[in-house]
Amino acid sequence: MTKKYVYLFREGGREMRDLLGGKGANLAEMTNIGLSVPFGFTITTEVCREYYAGGEELPAGLWEQVAPAVADVERASGKKFGDAQNPLLVSVRSGAPVSMPGMMDTILNLGLNDETAAGLARATENPRFAYDCYRRFIQMFGNVVLGIESHHFEYVLDDVKNERGAAYDSDLTADNLKEIVEKFKAIIRRETGRDFPANPHDQLREAVTAVFRSWNNQRAGVYRKANGIADDIGTAVNVQSMVFGNMGADSGTGVAFTRDPSTGERVLYGEFLMNAQGEDVVAGTRTPKPISTLKEENPAVYAQFTEIADNLEKHYHDMQDIEFTIERGRLFILQTRNGKCTAAAAIRIAVELCREGLITKKEAVSKIDPAQLDQLLHRRIDDKAKLDVIAKGLPASPGAASGKIVFDADVAERRGNDGEKVILVRMETTPDDIHGVLAAQGILTSRGGMTSHAAVVARHMGKPAVCGCEALKISYAEHKFTVDGAVFAEGDEISVDGATGWVMRGIIPMVDPELSAEFLAILDWADDIRSMEVMANADTPADAMKARSFGAAGIGLCRTEHMFMDQKRLPIVQEMILANDAAERAPFLAQLLVMQEEDFYGILKAMAGLPVTIRLLDPPLHEFLPSIEDLTEEIVRLRLRADSETREAQQELYKKENILKRVRALHEENPMLGHRGCRLGISFPDIYAMQARAIFQAAARLIKENINALPQVKIPLVVHYKELEILRAQTEDVANQVMREQGVTINYKVGTMIEIPRAALTADEIALHADFFSFGTNDLTQTTFGFSRDDAEGKFLPVYLDDGILPHNPFAVLDPEGVGKIMGICVDLARKTKPDFKIGICGEHGGDPSSIDLCQQLRLNYISCSPFRVPIARLGAAQSFLKEQKKTK
Amino acid sequence: MTKKYVYLFREGGREMRDLLGGKGANLAEMTNIGLSVPFGFTITTEVCREYYAGGEELPAGLWEQVAPAVADVERASGKKFGDAQNPLLVSVRSGAPVSMPGMMDTILNLGLNDETAAGLARATENPRFAYDCYRRFIQMFGNVVLGIESHHFEYVLDDVKNERGAAYDSDLTADNLKEIVEKFKAIIRRETGRDFPANPHDQLREAVTAVFRSWNNQRAGVYRKANGIADDIGTAVNVQSMVFGNMGADSGTGVAFTRDPSTGERVLYGEFLMNAQGEDVVAGTRTPKPISTLKEENPAVYAQFTEIADNLEKHYHDMQDIEFTIERGRLFILQTRNGKCTAAAAIRIAVELCREGLITKKEAVSKIDPAQLDQLLHRRIDDKAKLDVIAKGLPASPGAASGKIVFDADVAERRGNDGEKVILVRMETTPDDIHGVLAAQGILTSRGGMTSHAAVVARHMGKPAVCGCEALKISYAEHKFTVDGAVFAEGDEISVDGATGWVMRGIIPMVDPELSAEFLAILDWADDIRSMEVMANADTPADAMKARSFGAAGIGLCRTEHMFMDQKRLPIVQEMILANDAAERAPFLAQLLVMQEEDFYGILKAMAGLPVTIRLLDPPLHEFLPSIEDLTEEIVRLRLRADSETREAQQELYKKENILKRVRALHEENPMLGHRGCRLGISFPDIYAMQARAIFQAAARLIKENINALPQVKIPLVVHYKELEILRAQTEDVANQVMREQGVTINYKVGTMIEIPRAALTADEIALHADFFSFGTNDLTQTTFGFSRDDAEGKFLPVYLDDGILPHNPFAVLDPEGVGKIMGICVDLARKTKPDFKIGICGEHGGDPSSIDLCQQLRLNYISCSPFRVPIARLGAAQSFLKEQKKTK
Repeated sequence: MTKKYVYLFREGGREMRDLLGGKGANLAEMTNIGLSVPFGFTITTEVCREYYAGGEELPAGLWEQVAPAVADVERASGKKFGDAQNPLLVSVRSGAPVSMPGMMDTILNLGLNDETAAGLARATENPRFAYDCYRRFIQMFGNVVLGIESHHFEYVLDDVKNERGAAYDSDLTADNLKEIVEKFKAIIRRETGRDFPANPHDQLREAVTAVFRSWNNQRAGVYRKANGIADDIGTAVNVQSMVFGNMGADSGTGVAFTRDPSTGERVLYGEFLMNAQGEDVVAGTRTPKPISTLKEENPAVYAQFTEIADNLEKHYHDMQDIEFTIERGRLFILQTRNGKCTAAAAIRIAVELCREGLITKKEAVSKIDPAQLDQLLHRRIDDKAKLDVIAKGLPASPGAASGKIVFDADVAERRGNDGEKVILVRMETTPDDIHGVLAAQGILTSRGGMTSHAAVVARHMGKPAVCGCEALKISYAEHKFTVDGAVFAEGDEISVDGATGWVMRGIIPMVDPELSAEFLAILDWADDIRSMEVMANADTPADAMKARSFGAAGIGLCRTEHMFMDQKRLPIVQEMILANDAAERAPFLAQLLVMQEEDFYGILKAMAGLPVTIRLLDPPLHEFLPSIEDLTEEIVRLRLRADSETREAQQELYKKENILKRVRALHEENPMLGHRGCRLGISFPDIYAMQARAIFQAAARLIKENINALPQVKIPLVVHYKELEILRAQTEDVANQVMREQGVTINYKVGTMIEIPRAALTADEIALHADFFSFGTNDLTQTTFGFSRDDAEGKFLPVYLDDGILPHNPFAVLDPEGVGKIMGICVDLARKTKPDFKIGICGEHGGDPSSIDLCQQLRLNYISCSPFRVPIARLGAAQSFLKEQKKTK
Repeated sequence: MTKKYVYLFREGGREMRDLLGGKGANLAEMTNIGLSVPFGFTITTEVCREYYAGGEELPAGLWEQVAPAVADVERASGKKFGDAQNPLLVSVRSGAPVSMPGMMDTILNLGLNDETAAGLARATENPRFAYDCYRRFIQMFGNVVLGIESHHFEYVLDDVKNERGAAYDSDLTADNLKEIVEKFKAIIRRETGRDFPANPHDQLREAVTAVFRSWNNQRAGVYRKANGIADDIGTAVNVQSMVFGNMGADSGTGVAFTRDPSTGERVLYGEFLMNAQGEDVVAGTRTPKPISTLKEENPAVYAQFTEIADNLEKHYHDMQDIEFTIERGRLFILQTRNGKCTAAAAIRIAVELCREGLITKKEAVSKIDPAQLDQLLHRRIDDKAKLDVIAKGLPASPGAASGKIVFDADVAERRGNDGEKVILVRMETTPDDIHGVLAAQGILTSRGGMTSHAAVVARHMGKPAVCGCEALKISYAEHKFTVDGAVFAEGDEISVDGATGWVMRGIIPMVDPELSAEFLAILDWADDIRSMEVMANADTPADAMKARSFGAAGIGLCRTEHMFMDQKRLPIVQEMILANDAAERAPFLAQLLVMQEEDFYGILKAMAGLPVTIRLLDPPLHEFLPSIEDLTEEIVRLRLRADSETREAQQELYKKENILKRVRALHEENPMLGHRGCRLGISFPDIYAMQARAIFQAAARLIKENINALPQVKIPLVVHYKELEILRAQTEDVANQVMREQGVTINYKVGTMIEIPRAALTADEIALHADFFSFGTNDLTQTTFGFSRDDAEGKFLPVYLDDGILPHNPFAVLDPEGVGKIMGICVDLARKTKPDFKIGICGEHGGDPSSIDLCQQLRLNYISCSPFRVPIARLGAAQSFLKEQKKTK
């Protein structure tokens, strides 16, 4: 028996992708579910393989199968190859099992010759259209099938345009085009020594061969190599009847969504044009009409279309984006696919599809792209607002904000505290600007990328930010910036939109983020599905409240160093650091104790009944002191000053030199790997003891007020179980003291960060001394890669991403092969010691969906992310759970 | 049947340690091999356990076994408890299965009373001795057994001394001592209400009980806790006849080694005194005679002793250190143990013991302590030299050196190149001083510890160094240092001894290190045993030669950055770095190419026929540039200078500012985790390409000269296989070009360092692109621990070591739990990809014996260490192999 080389669309199905290619399988699927797809057939990928195996010859017996398939198409469409009254025209397209967009060749309008072109002109009452199709077909055929270079045709086209005084192709008349057709035929004669083939069957045979040949053209080869696609899978060829929406008043074309893609409402949404082709809709020369008016213009077709739309949603379980053409009253579906829509619409559609019984809750949850949700969780510009965009930067942190320009963090803080709304405008921000960022409505920088300090901090704080807006020329000295000649002074009003990167003049009306009923429903369903808890990273009561309102199950990471950076406290912190020993430190620690107790009181109160995980001091102490560079400069200045001999100058000098000496003593070559985290706790037990006391005193106060405070102390940067053993014992001592003093019982836990490879590698021992682990994936990525984040992102990481050495920035997306592997080792070791041991992650990765997938694979118990990403993480965790469930089935 | 509670020495053996304790088992062993050990017996540890189980009562039936044992001792020794003519005196000592030196109680001379003391006085013709023994015994018994505090006895002693005008105990006469004995007995009566027990059997019973009681005294309990010794193993009690070397002219005492402990020569070596006790030898009141003279004084005893010495060596398979006493012509062996000796002697003894057939080659190799060999591998001070030591610092790098004082690396280099011998004296050294260290004979610093820059570099280069010599007050400005008031100026001659830390005035005669024939033999045997190859880390032809002469199988690590630091090259390197792009870099790279080719030519030539592994540029580029701090200071100075408005000043300022800008751009927060290693190779392919070309051109030249050059290119700091894939391809391209240009074939390999956790965790993928791996354990320790070595050793590591959080500095001794574990993961993954894959380590750990053990456990193929430690590593590798073999048996 001969092999089956050719499948009519009605003989295939979507499961036959390998044999029929993606497009062929899809056309077959649509045909089989009863859509009126233009008739056609697919020549299999096997033919392509045999074509190459046989020395670039079509296999024997192929045409014996193609001819009847053509006949079938003729029969079904009522058209005929070469028929001058009702000519059958076809498209011939490639279609591999893996999508390779634009890499291979396509021929349209095959079947045209002098007779059929004339027939098409008559049928469409549009000779210009018919001859334009004809000349395009000859040019395409000449180029693709016969290998004649395009410029031969282009020259002729230009010549005729010049002769006829036509500026554009569209200025050419039908007669001009007929002239061009003749000249094109002459080119083919001249270049190939034979006539353009008028017989459509000949045209088809040559076109099919050309498409198979294009599988091995250079660009397709390069594309396959770059995308890891095997060279021997081959392409199928689809031959499909062309249909025309411009064959008179009973013809037309359009595009429609089965639901409104901006709101998700269940109405047909789209537009159409009668007596027109798809290009007319796109070109904008005629204004399309809303799809709803089709109901009056052609109730039968409209009824047919709405029924199709319904069936398509039922078949594909999703909102569909449908292209259709009506040819002489007959409706054809050219394409259908899952429709793209706004995040709000996606959520509403998923919820309604579920309620309509088309999909399950699990499917609804799986449908939403968590990354898209970001836009729903921030204030945004009112759609109706008029915008005066003055510049565009990088959309660094979503949300929009308006306020008065300030150029200095201190000013921002002062004015912000006075109740003014300000936008902090800086060339770039540094950790010294944190208080300004906190007080501002939004951030605008002229330098730095998506991972610059400003961007990272703003995203963490949920502040809108536009970064790297290079058009801005900032002069701090003159308190102004200029952009395109316009000058903006301190106090002028601007707005920024961190979703688009726009900078706008004036105050723009905003709308608040709303968690719609559907959004809340989806999150509810997600909560029912997921196994991982979602916590938030929050350092202030305000952040904690936000996190709680977004559904966080607690605080997974409360950093205490931001509290130390507060402008009112920094001088005390500095005195504490400059002290020579514990006795000298004591009075400053006593002052800090009072302040920290208030910090923790606020956060524990905001999260009453939920756990609050507080990390003890982590960064190296010199981060709180002025830089060596600044001090050196000051000292040299003081020494060289005219009045340097006065007693005051000498005293000042002496003081600065002393500070410099201490800063130098604290200076580290690699602070990231230096004296920080629990190493500080070991060296300066009094600092950690003060923090522990502040936590437990705050908790005790709340408990006496009948508020359920659940503090968890987290020790950072442990590498050896003995560090934790010692610091846990100290923490417990302090807790016992406070409980005794206050006469209350505090329900607390002590755990540790796992952020250094050695900790992960010895997790079995460390787990003995911990109630929980929390992966600090930022530090763990730094040490596992040997990448300093600050240095990598500014120096070599961009090259690594450009060159494809790394697929992602590992600080944004967890690296599964390296960091993920060592996390897995840690989880296995820890659970060997304590089978139900609680392990989670905190850090920016906690809000990234693919990182959440990895956490699920690693069987973590919770993820903790910034408050604004909590809903995303809730959804992401549910999706990850479903993916894992699917895998293990 | 009653339990056996008491073992005569001849009933025990060394395998009965648990029951008889260490001392008891040893005494039994010596007795059984025919030594004339003073007779005695052991009461078992079981009795101790029953003593405590029974509420601190000796078990019933014990004394029924002790009495016959005492009778046996009486019989054998011909002495009798309480006999006035020939009294039996015994010692009663503790002896647990695990050594607990000094923690429990001992009673000597038990058996003395008024009669036996008089008898002893007669027998020794030394009444003073006899009554001194007697008063000591009463005091000891009173204190230990009866619990009377010592001061009661001390007061009496002091009173008598005052009354009799005796300054020291030794001034007391026999009569004085008799008086004291009576007063001591009175104390006992007064404090306990009973008489001092005169009956030796009563004395013995009480003493045995006291020793068991001392198992649980406070200091023993603390000791057991600190050393992890179980509380319930208990101690044995040894009762042994006392012998006296002072019983007349036919008595004596001495100590002897079976071989000369300083040379290892096979002669009896030691000294003795006739008619004396051990204390007399130690006190130095009489001058002992060489053991050889015993031959004439008492040929029979001498013959007996030499026979015993021979037998002991045969029995213990090692040189013995023997204590003996002759009592009335009868030889007793009191103690024998393996003798301590110099490294040279240890080697000779091991070799000769082997040749004498007493031990196997494996045993000989196992006997040598590799750490001790260090002293043999460096020039050292002639033993006969007179020394004028002016100060003492830390013995930072072994070996001794003399030369003229210089205070500056440049001066050191200039004078050194002129052939002068200089000692570089600095407060501390920095990487900028490398050329001075290289040119100096030795290094002396006034600051910094064993792991300071100077110490590490000096050890690596095999230069003698004394560090942290704080007595030195150095004034760079005046080119001098003072120490204890003495002034030393530049050009004055001093010597340093890095083995002792001594700094000496003047030039001291030195002796060269010699690898003795026996040393070479041991190394030969070690080579036959070990499975790991030993390579060397060497950056210069001179180091390479040294490594080769010490038996290195090749160069495991040749660093190229020291070559860049050379003073002649640094300006070119700086220009290269300051260039803006590859085009600007090209001319400087061309200059460096010529120089690097010479570097590699020299090293490859020195190692002809052996592989030379060259690591491409590793450190961040800003290490080659001046510091931001220095530049800032210079710029502020220039700005504030009186003539700052002149054109020259402006130009200078402009230049400095430009450099500062570039240095700032290259500045990194954490250079250790920054833009270095292969990240430079990816960013600046032209730099790595230049180095590869220099290597292959050098190799090609040598091959044309018929010299077998075997270069291996090592890519540093790989974290992802794609880095290696790209850089390997580039290296191969360069190799192919050079081979084509030169018309030769170069036998080369390309491998990578594994020094970042991610590389270890993805070793299966990386191994696909590598011919070998080399663990960079310094960097791997840094990233696995998250410790910056520079910062850790100066800041928190000392606290960690003091507090016992870490057992060792992990940069000196490989951490098996963390770093070792990830190395093991790496080895397993790599060998999954390529079963015979070659993996080694390079770095300081390669010369540390316990780290070598770990490498053997991890089944590494080679270790690479500094040239001077190659012999140590050869021996260490053999010992590690034997240890592993023993384990797996």
